[in-house]
Amino acid sequence: MGLVDYRYWGKRDTKLILPTNSSLSVTLDQDHLRSTTTSRADPKFEKDRLWLNGKEEDIKEGGRMATCIREMKRLRREVEEKSPNEPKLSEMNVHICSHNNFPTAAGLASSASGFAALVSSLAALYSLPASPSTLSLIARQGSGSACRSLFGGFVAWEMGSKPDGSDSLAIQVAPREHWPDIHALICVVSDDKKGTSSTSGMQRTVETSTLLEKRIKVVVPERMKVISKAILEKDFDTFARVTMQDSNQFHAVALDTDPPIFYMNDVSRSIIALVTEYNRVSVAAGGKLKAAYTYDAGPNAVIYAPKENLKEIVELIVHYFPQADGFKDAFGLFGSGGAKGKVVEGFNEGVAKKWGVGAVKGLIHTRVGDGPRVLGAEEGLLGLEGFPKTTA
Amino acid sequence: MGLVDYRYWGKRDTKLILPTNSSLSVTLDQDHLRSTTTSRADPKFEKDRLWLNGKEEDIKEGGRMATCIREMKRLRREVEEKSPNEPKLSEMNVHICSHNNFPTAAGLASSASGFAALVSSLAALYSLPASPSTLSLIARQGSGSACRSLFGGFVAWEMGSKPDGSDSLAIQVAPREHWPDIHALICVVSDDKKGTSSTSGMQRTVETSTLLEKRIKVVVPERMKVISKAILEKDFDTFARVTMQDSNQFHAVALDTDPPIFYMNDVSRSIIALVTEYNRVSVAAGGKLKAAYTYDAGPNAVIYAPKENLKEIVELIVHYFPQADGFKDAFGLFGSGGAKGKVVEGFNEGVAKKWGVGAVKGLIHTRVGDGPRVLGAEEGLLGLEGFPKTTA
Repeated sequence: MGLVDYRYWGKRDTKLILPTNSSLSVTLDQDHLRSTTTSRADPKFEKDRLWLNGKEEDIKEGGRMATCIREMKRLRREVEEKSPNEPKLSEMNVHICSHNNFPTAAGLASSASGFAALVSSLAALYSLPASPSTLSLIARQGSGSACRSLFGGFVAWEMGSKPDGSDSLAIQVAPREHWPDIHALICVVSDDKKGTSSTSGMQRTVETSTLLEKRIKVVVPERMKVISKAILEKDFDTFARVTMQDSNQFHAVALDTDPPIFYMNDVSRSIIALVTEYNRVSVAAGGKLKAAYTYDAGPNAVIYAPKENLKEIVELIVHYFPQADGFKDAFGLFGSGGAKGKVVEGFNEGVAKKWGVGAVKGLIHTRVGDGPRVLGAEEGLLGLEGFPKTTA
Repeated sequence: MGLVDYRYWGKRDTKLILPTNSSLSVTLDQDHLRSTTTSRADPKFEKDRLWLNGKEEDIKEGGRMATCIREMKRLRREVEEKSPNEPKLSEMNVHICSHNNFPTAAGLASSASGFAALVSSLAALYSLPASPSTLSLIARQGSGSACRSLFGGFVAWEMGSKPDGSDSLAIQVAPREHWPDIHALICVVSDDKKGTSSTSGMQRTVETSTLLEKRIKVVVPERMKVISKAILEKDFDTFARVTMQDSNQFHAVALDTDPPIFYMNDVSRSIIALVTEYNRVSVAAGGKLKAAYTYDAGPNAVIYAPKENLKEIVELIVHYFPQADGFKDAFGLFGSGGAKGKVVEGFNEGVAKKWGVGAVKGLIHTRVGDGPRVLGAEEGLLGLEGFPKTTA
């Protein structure tokens, strides 16, 4: 699963999903957040079919799902043409079954994760020799951000310049093993209001923001260089500063749209205030930035930090946002007492108010993850007849 | 009282209060919102003294208040030098008593109003021949926005270019009589959190926003031309569009600051959604924009509209933001039944949630106003001995 630091926002081509600027994301650990997808081709199947989280979804002709399946079959056909002994899988219909383990409707980039898993699953079914970057060209046409999720670690989406999109693909800046110390706390935030669909929002920003051009032509290219270097040098201070500045600027151009687009709400603002104060205390004591917030097209916060700071950060968030359920302590930070909520010494508690239970309705502790994994047959989601195990 | 459409934000000189861009405001009607100031000079007074809303305030040496008084005395001295028969008021200390009738701590630009009234009062005391533009140079050094409030109607603050600030002054684009139909509904919004002081916020934006330069060098100069023309042509559609776009961009560069600055909150966002939907309904029916929101450095909304729309707008706001007290119907829009709250036909009620009592804690209906008035002696705030009537 990927979460975006450098947002793509505004598509120069909405059909091919070509972005207005390059972007960068951290792929998160599938031990905690994952899409699992099984696909099968069979001459008996009457049409391409898809089940998502136990429910069959329509594969619309000319839609994004159909495009991805068609493009994957095209790559398979190339294999079959070169090796005539290969079974003609490209001529068969496919059944695809996919499941996300994310909290329902939390707005956690499930389409990015899902399309990456779909492409990855079909690539395995078809025994494609394609590199992740080549596959990312296809995943991109399903959901832009999905292209980055074909890799683990720290991944850039190079915007490219060709009209056909053939150079708008993902490359890995560094694998997770390079900097495994990067952990993340996802704060799932309640929101009263329905958000703008990100596609229509992007288009309006491109059409109406008078600040966007400066961002995409000048600011983002410079920041891409700086943050890539910070990743290679494991320089968290720079990584954090640029991540926060860029999250804020992404939301600034959303606000500069006519009519304006707001993704963050008062809870999001409070989390920003807490991370800002937490960093201020560290810097005032001669230290460096200890955490970085980032917000995608929604109110949920992702807080990145070196592992050693996660305990303090969980305590801080729990202090201001009491949790209905105990903190799911995936990394054993707390003893049996769990996280009770407290702030670090010198912290100005007045920077935000204490919220009621449910304002942050869930916390997920995870870390930088690896890329797509091929699972054993026993973990497949389709039964022998090619229908979902759970519903068949 | 002035409310800003084109924000000055970022001062190129913090001592002289020189802005990074020109700006424009509408002076509101003192029948509803006003500062009343009385000043007196007397050889018996031992020092310059100031009472504000019944409480004596310290006049700090080298501070903004002291600067304004000193500059006004300098102008008086010029008068005395030319006309030796004039009493030597410039050599006497002054007592100044000022009162705002605004809701306490509502964040309604009280310092702008107060400094304009102060300068205006001293100009009357000293019988200065100075034009409002000349006085605006001095009011500006008290509180930047105050310079615009020396005029009624629609007022521009020309940023100027001289290092000494001698061309950074206010000019009137049009008097109230030109377009008296412009009314305003001020929505006083509760906020949990303390805001950033606007002075330190401005400095941080100048230092850290990578989008500000585009705004001040390109976007604002163009918009100043467009909105000035719209005022001269009484073109509400253009006035409204530019006012909203510019309010949003002002807050966008605040968000692009490091750390980010938020002035609007979820209530402010809801009011934006309501005005946006109200306008959408009109435009969808072939009409024009009917209202414009604008936000200064705080969560309060000012909604501008032609008078004929105010009844619908009050009903709309009351529908979503129930009021503890009845609507103060200064213009007699409603009969004895008052505003009950409703939306116009075709309005999508789902664009915002209905809030509880107190989210918008007050509504003030006012309109474009005139400039400073000289009041009769019986309305003065200082008694015969030169001390405040209420506290002496």
